[in-house]
Amino acid sequence: MNSDALLIIAVSEADSNLYYATRFFAPDPFVFLQVAGRKILLMSDLEIDRARAQARVDEVVSLSEYEGKARQRWQAPHFIDTVGLFLEAYGVQAVTVPATFPLEYADRLRDTGVQVTARPDPFFPERLIKSEEEIAAIAETQRHTEMAFEAAVRVLRESRIRGERVHWQGKPLTVEALKKVINISLMENDCVAQHTIVACGIDGVDPHNQGSGPIRPNESIVFDIFPRSSRTRYFADMTRTVVKGTASDDLRRMYDAVLAAQLRGIELVRDGASGQAIHAEVARVLEVRGYETGSVDGRMQGFFHGTGHGVGLDIHEPPRISKVDYPLRGGQVVTVEPGLYYSRWGAVRIEDLVVVEAGGCRNLTRAPKLTLLEL
Amino acid sequence: MNSDALLIIAVSEADSNLYYATRFFAPDPFVFLQVAGRKILLMSDLEIDRARAQARVDEVVSLSEYEGKARQRWQAPHFIDTVGLFLEAYGVQAVTVPATFPLEYADRLRDTGVQVTARPDPFFPERLIKSEEEIAAIAETQRHTEMAFEAAVRVLRESRIRGERVHWQGKPLTVEALKKVINISLMENDCVAQHTIVACGIDGVDPHNQGSGPIRPNESIVFDIFPRSSRTRYFADMTRTVVKGTASDDLRRMYDAVLAAQLRGIELVRDGASGQAIHAEVARVLEVRGYETGSVDGRMQGFFHGTGHGVGLDIHEPPRISKVDYPLRGGQVVTVEPGLYYSRWGAVRIEDLVVVEAGGCRNLTRAPKLTLLEL
Repeated sequence: MNSDALLIIAVSEADSNLYYATRFFAPDPFVFLQVAGRKILLMSDLEIDRARAQARVDEVVSLSEYEGKARQRWQAPHFIDTVGLFLEAYGVQAVTVPATFPLEYADRLRDTGVQVTARPDPFFPERLIKSEEEIAAIAETQRHTEMAFEAAVRVLRESRIRGERVHWQGKPLTVEALKKVINISLMENDCVAQHTIVACGIDGVDPHNQGSGPIRPNESIVFDIFPRSSRTRYFADMTRTVVKGTASDDLRRMYDAVLAAQLRGIELVRDGASGQAIHAEVARVLEVRGYETGSVDGRMQGFFHGTGHGVGLDIHEPPRISKVDYPLRGGQVVTVEPGLYYSRWGAVRIEDLVVVEAGGCRNLTRAPKLTLLEL
Repeated sequence: MNSDALLIIAVSEADSNLYYATRFFAPDPFVFLQVAGRKILLMSDLEIDRARAQARVDEVVSLSEYEGKARQRWQAPHFIDTVGLFLEAYGVQAVTVPATFPLEYADRLRDTGVQVTARPDPFFPERLIKSEEEIAAIAETQRHTEMAFEAAVRVLRESRIRGERVHWQGKPLTVEALKKVINISLMENDCVAQHTIVACGIDGVDPHNQGSGPIRPNESIVFDIFPRSSRTRYFADMTRTVVKGTASDDLRRMYDAVLAAQLRGIELVRDGASGQAIHAEVARVLEVRGYETGSVDGRMQGFFHGTGHGVGLDIHEPPRISKVDYPLRGGQVVTVEPGLYYSRWGAVRIEDLVVVEAGGCRNLTRAPKLTLLEL
């Protein structure tokens, strides 16, 4: 009997733990078992050849063979009956599963006598500590992110202010047109970005509003771009705030405050630092400059999100740099992204991606940020 | 006490049930409760304003308020403690959750005395029966899919055979270049396709091989394109098989067999039909033409996947037209996509998207298929 077995049943495209464990992509669910140091996949006929060729595992066994055995024992076996036979064949009576393991499967396995224990995240703690190969992959996606942002900046430079609109190639410039430019640039580099934020003026004041409609001059434009490489599967994440035209003094002051907070946050990132303490200090830098946070007219204003999060095979991974404490460890890749949001003035967010190291951190972001870009 | 309460905790971007229930998109998890006919969301400060403006629910309540209450009761409350207080406030002691509900959350809720029952898919049976509005959205994505395919066909028409290569715009034409053309066309229509298959010759013989490298003349090229509209969130799905140059007689015969099987399958799709019976008949049409299915040299050959699947907010939904029985119902949208795969000859798959109706089905696919396209 093996009580230290790990079991994942998921779609590797949607479940980074399964992809991390196998480096195998499939659009349909499959079964991963790790027992006594061996990695075993239970695969459908449709994927079994590709899995044997591509998956970084020790053994790939046929789901349909186990389905045949299950039909000998039960008249209409459930998928989990088949998985149960598979576990039995490997002497597994107890499994540790990810926190996200599907409840229906867990309850059915428990009904068959298998002990199922959910492990709180992170399922593979080693996933948080990136290898040099993984850091290189993230840095590469980051380069592509910056090229996409630069393509959008070129459009803003080429465009002309006409009254309350910005014109480009003879038409009013829109968020949609800028996103298309960003997406085409990313695609040229095998990256895919979903939910890119290009938020002008008041739209940016809701940090998750993805933005839409015409670009207006002299207002903040927040670009938050977080694509994934289709090749390596690693994400990057960057935010820059620019203005087409001339910023108000209020907006420039806000920018300087966010920049100061961000630089202070980056300064504090190092192996052993407390994410909670960094977040508190970043918030303090904004507060001492007079930027208050709280509900105004029923709407949150100021700085009301976390300072940062881990990035890797998921766009949001542990650790967090936020109100909840996480100690930072060397080899983690985290964002540092304070922001300020006020209905009166607009939005500013500045985000870099850094690698936690022994005495500090290494910034993977090269895009300029030291002054508010007025284009 | 309400025992008929539904609870979902998920990321609506990844969980179509949650999106279906709320029509609200957020990149981070949130909590959905349906009790006594009312839909209630528990939302973070970051999303609460947007949720109140956009979500199709009856009430949006503040997560941070419940977190405050939880901190009065426990020193370091877990997220699920907060959810427990929320359920308590609405008099809920028993919840039905999706099959995919995270095990860690379920076990913690059970520890607090809440009865948690996983409902096997479909969680919302009504999701399978598409409204006219939903069918229109799927049909629209299908139009964009066909435009993308036509863009690729134009490239194949413009390209020239030179020996064992195909040249386009002065360079050897590759799968990667064709996918770029497809993706740009989709992007122009706010669609995103992941894992598009453009598989030439032997690559196509593995039905899930996405394809790569040079396009070779006189070989089968399988295009399987299944994008999602970023606007409506509905998928479409289409497969066509073409040849650049001239097909062998064997390949043409295979094409005719797959076409006959597909037309027969479509003929049988109607309200009340058995998915299992349709799949068996489609397989029979291939068999009587002499196309056998089974392992050859350790590799599955012939027709070894299902005939079809539902399409909607997910690319793979119930019902299935396969070895497992599902009765088809009017208003379902399903693919019909038999294929043949032989190392010797190549691959053929033909896939249309149809709406199940009372006496038959309505084909949403307009792209030609009645003869093998030799370009």
